[in-house]
Amino acid sequence: GPEALLLWKSKSTFTSFGVFLLQMGWGDLGAFGEPSKETPNLDQMASEGMLFLDFYTANPLCSPSRAALLTGRLPVRNGFYTTNAHARNAYTPQDIVGGIPDYELLLPELLKKAGYTNKIIGKWHLGHRPQFHPLKHGFDEWFGSPNCHFGPFDNRALPNIPVYKDWEMIGRYYEDFKIDLKTGEANLTQIYLQEALDFISKQQASQQPFFLYWAIDATHAPVYASKHFLGTSQRGLYGDAVREIDDSIGKILKHLQKLGISEDTFVFFTSDNGAALISAPKQGGSNGRFLCGKQTTFEGGMREPAIAWWPGHIPAGGVSHQLGNVMDLFTTSLSLAGLQPPSDRQIDGIDLLPAILQGKLIDRPIFYYRGNEMMAVRVGLYKAHYWTWSNSWEEYGKGIDFCPGQNVSGVTTHTQEEHTNLPLLFHLGRDPGEKYPLSFVSDEYQRAMEQISAVVQQHKATMVPGEPQLNVCDKAVMNWSPPGCEKLGKCLKQPESDPKKCFWPH
Amino acid sequence: GPEALLLWKSKSTFTSFGVFLLQMGWGDLGAFGEPSKETPNLDQMASEGMLFLDFYTANPLCSPSRAALLTGRLPVRNGFYTTNAHARNAYTPQDIVGGIPDYELLLPELLKKAGYTNKIIGKWHLGHRPQFHPLKHGFDEWFGSPNCHFGPFDNRALPNIPVYKDWEMIGRYYEDFKIDLKTGEANLTQIYLQEALDFISKQQASQQPFFLYWAIDATHAPVYASKHFLGTSQRGLYGDAVREIDDSIGKILKHLQKLGISEDTFVFFTSDNGAALISAPKQGGSNGRFLCGKQTTFEGGMREPAIAWWPGHIPAGGVSHQLGNVMDLFTTSLSLAGLQPPSDRQIDGIDLLPAILQGKLIDRPIFYYRGNEMMAVRVGLYKAHYWTWSNSWEEYGKGIDFCPGQNVSGVTTHTQEEHTNLPLLFHLGRDPGEKYPLSFVSDEYQRAMEQISAVVQQHKATMVPGEPQLNVCDKAVMNWSPPGCEKLGKCLKQPESDPKKCFWPH
Repeated sequence: GPEALLLWKSKSTFTSFGVFLLQMGWGDLGAFGEPSKETPNLDQMASEGMLFLDFYTANPLCSPSRAALLTGRLPVRNGFYTTNAHARNAYTPQDIVGGIPDYELLLPELLKKAGYTNKIIGKWHLGHRPQFHPLKHGFDEWFGSPNCHFGPFDNRALPNIPVYKDWEMIGRYYEDFKIDLKTGEANLTQIYLQEALDFISKQQASQQPFFLYWAIDATHAPVYASKHFLGTSQRGLYGDAVREIDDSIGKILKHLQKLGISEDTFVFFTSDNGAALISAPKQGGSNGRFLCGKQTTFEGGMREPAIAWWPGHIPAGGVSHQLGNVMDLFTTSLSLAGLQPPSDRQIDGIDLLPAILQGKLIDRPIFYYRGNEMMAVRVGLYKAHYWTWSNSWEEYGKGIDFCPGQNVSGVTTHTQEEHTNLPLLFHLGRDPGEKYPLSFVSDEYQRAMEQISAVVQQHKATMVPGEPQLNVCDKAVMNWSPPGCEKLGKCLKQPESDPKKCFWPH
Repeated sequence: GPEALLLWKSKSTFTSFGVFLLQMGWGDLGAFGEPSKETPNLDQMASEGMLFLDFYTANPLCSPSRAALLTGRLPVRNGFYTTNAHARNAYTPQDIVGGIPDYELLLPELLKKAGYTNKIIGKWHLGHRPQFHPLKHGFDEWFGSPNCHFGPFDNRALPNIPVYKDWEMIGRYYEDFKIDLKTGEANLTQIYLQEALDFISKQQASQQPFFLYWAIDATHAPVYASKHFLGTSQRGLYGDAVREIDDSIGKILKHLQKLGISEDTFVFFTSDNGAALISAPKQGGSNGRFLCGKQTTFEGGMREPAIAWWPGHIPAGGVSHQLGNVMDLFTTSLSLAGLQPPSDRQIDGIDLLPAILQGKLIDRPIFYYRGNEMMAVRVGLYKAHYWTWSNSWEEYGKGIDFCPGQNVSGVTTHTQEEHTNLPLLFHLGRDPGEKYPLSFVSDEYQRAMEQISAVVQQHKATMVPGEPQLNVCDKAVMNWSPPGCEKLGKCLKQPESDPKKCFWPH
């Protein structure tokens, strides 16, 4: 689902607003070449703003990516990783014990000091136990759920996911918030849209600066769209969902314009991970010509669509090759609010404003992690793979394929292959699809790896991992009795505690 | 190399101008999602004109595609195919005996009757023996060569390709027209650009309507660019060549505007076949997310970038889902000139003006041929493969791969697989990459195939193949002594005639 982020002071200051489309891939937007070109609003947003062509998420999976965005730090630093097995992706399912540590400073906590009202609409995904509640981490308002909208569950083995309004739950998915898995109909995106419009109106009316993080759960599987959009896309249900999101974003931007605050509003659109090709084409999107998808550290897993929009400030129709990362939205938003990032910890995000407003190119690497293993690094146009892995032969034999139709020998490997002595090197300009590794004996390889090795050495030498939050699972911590369940008669019986190592297969 | 096409009457009429980028793929344009977005002029042409998202060539190889464009007829009708072996691609190498038959009526022949001056700049590729000369088939002027700029040759086993100005050769590639294979430097595109600008100026000055077919040979391998563009692209030499073509097209459009005839000028940009992935990434482009490339009847071989531009007539920023084909440029150009297509033969091209000017969608199928075998057909969003083949195991074993990194089991087959009883069916909206065949037992399959079968039956029942032109090869017919060679001292010794069946491996 998309997330959004917004920051505004009346006069001379800003609204920052980011949309993070869960699992919507680079290739899903018309502006990025989707062959049916069904995203007129996002395409217009791009033509009025700046398109980032080399923008990344911090992790090929949702929870760590969102934790990175809100902390400005790599998941391996903020604890959103597992050490249960080597190079594994992990997230926050219902039985996860961990969540965002109190030590971490989230963007809304910092913005609060500058007078911002902070709202999250949609999927939090940074832990659902009471201490992890978004209103304990800087948000003032919340409409949405702590986890993915998987279901329907039976409320015995698994509770249905609660939907919160601020501190308390107001219902559960599939019960009070319908999702028809047969027809694909659900009006959740419309609800999230209305929440955004109302919040923006309220803030504008009271002249209160705000930060809106619009983090809806579409287009995550199970995919849904509201009735008005069902059957309207060439691309089937997934395309219907994309069209509805596109339409919603258009309405939000028009709302800002109508209220006369668009020139004080910084809006950023991106995604938390690449399209889930394993669910494609019916429940998953497209990563264009990039290799593989969600769960992998190939470009399809981590290169994201990204658009910055701020009329009157960002030159219309701009295109940036700045290497960007969702973590930069932390630092950039602080900069817009006139704040400094915390100095007592390593911050990985950089301030993108010089790239956005002055067209500068800031030299910085991109790191690609699975768990606490640095799988790959990008420096300039070169990307070196220190480890390759898609998923295990065992999973693959069961039909789980993160790279359908995209086998590249020796690259999309089904065993974890170490290349730390002689990394696989790609030139992403000539070969964005990571299909043609450079020859190890070429001068180009030698020159590029010299530079990259220095970057990696420095990164590893100064790396201090946080305490891993995604190691322990326990059925007792599921969403049995969220706050507010009593009023609704929706409290469920919690089983005995039985903490175990979570199982992360890939 | 690009081809171009132009048609103009002073006042109230038109210039028609098409650019066909040889081997430039769907994914090579920024407007179609190329990740380094280096085609600002083509992207602007698209934003001022109409983007065709479902536009096809008539064949996945250059000669037949160009013959189809100029005749409005499928290669199987106009003779640009071979029957030497089953389902083989064929073109016009130097030893080809055949060429465009006199019976065929070419677009410039017809336009002549309406007073147009017709010029071809670039690669003719419809046969190089005297009877096939473009000035014998309706063109008034020619600057370019009859074949690809392969070389350098030794002028003994193989002559270097001649470059013609109108009736006579004026030199040969690699001799008088330099191409430095080491640095990739050649100023040929600049020469073709200047030819276009000069021709347009001359026609405008004399108020003579014109048809310009700009058919340059870049971006065919060996790839080249002029000094100014070398090293300027993120994509390497191939990208340098694309940037130069993009720049040239921008200059041509600006020239039309400067001369005040842009509103009387219909311009169409497209490509003669998909990017040659076998040459990628250093000498070949990208087909975006489409499957495979040149030589194949998958989408990557035949779906082409396409832009129509005609300021004041075509609504800016339009997007069309009309199924289009290069053959339509024949019929559309005639329509622009107020002419009817010949009624004594089957014409496959349709008039696209209702789609371009009124946004109509005309129902029509797309046929995908290799040789005289109909490999596949598209009806609406469905594409049925009656035969699948990429290339032989024997070739594949030698490293010849038309689908690098894109193996789709049972689809990109290395044996010719017949599916005529139960075609492989894809939904190109949900699955533009042809990775997920529909289940044979689904209702959707049954419904779609009923419709498709009727279309195929009618097509086959009325098909009258022309005499195949690409069966016989003979070293004696090579470009040994083109007209004008005497003046230049460039006549070469012709060997004894020894006609043989041409060998078409794929």
